[in-house]
Amino acid sequence: MQQRLDFITLGVADLDAARRFYRDGLGWTPLLDVAEEVVFFQVGHGVVLGLFRADKMAADVGAGPPAGPVGAGVTLSHNVDRAEAVAEVLAAAEAAGGTVVKPAQRADFGGVNGHVADPAGYLWEIAHNPGWSVAPDGTVRLEPIG
Amino acid sequence: MQQRLDFITLGVADLDAARRFYRDGLGWTPLLDVAEEVVFFQVGHGVVLGLFRADKMAADVGAGPPAGPVGAGVTLSHNVDRAEAVAEVLAAAEAAGGTVVKPAQRADFGGVNGHVADPAGYLWEIAHNPGWSVAPDGTVRLEPIG
Repeated sequence: MQQRLDFITLGVADLDAARRFYRDGLGWTPLLDVAEEVVFFQVGHGVVLGLFRADKMAADVGAGPPAGPVGAGVTLSHNVDRAEAVAEVLAAAEAAGGTVVKPAQRADFGGVNGHVADPAGYLWEIAHNPGWSVAPDGTVRLEPIG
Repeated sequence: MQQRLDFITLGVADLDAARRFYRDGLGWTPLLDVAEEVVFFQVGHGVVLGLFRADKMAADVGAGPPAGPVGAGVTLSHNVDRAEAVAEVLAAAEAAGGTVVKPAQRADFGGVNGHVADPAGYLWEIAHNPGWSVAPDGTVRLEPIG
């Protein structure tokens, strides 16, 4: 299994609410939108975020509880290039219908972050991390700072 | 808020189990490994997967329950270029310490998929989707098939 993630799919009880937030609120362009089922957005070089109606997603995975202990939480991160942009993007996401869970503040990793929940409760971290950068070929640099 | 995902971070109660699965079992190379806290893997062009010790992750997000209704589930997808490779990769992930939740089978989208849970219960979909491809510049093609 190669070291590669192609899709991240989030189950949502209310697909229309997800569309309103991501497409109408944030202004994102769908890659593929299937009525009453799923909407996909390209969110990076070769990477797709899907919002999948929860009942159809559960049917795809099959019956039965998840194996092993339940995960302790998931955060999607969106990085910005200025510390001040963290608060700005949190405000924009809130205006789009999100709920700010943690306002912009100094983070343990040495930069600034804050968190906003989408309408289904999925958390986005908005972060400015001087220890992170991406080279033109896609190679990520990630170093502890502070 | 631009249409971009930089990190996906999964909270795990047992960070060593996550290391054993992703690093030792699957043979993935860490980008950054902080003892007793977090391990990051680059999983695409500019994209990072983090396994974060759940208590430290919760402390970063802050106290309080998540806003809004709880999400209905998350699936990470790893696509392969042959239908037969779905079963092969599921078997490799199982050998690495994962638990197969759904064996390889014909999927609603017209291709083949199957699901395997990592030690914390996070689901990976292994999929072969003839309607999906990525151009050299990172542009994703995603079309309904079948």
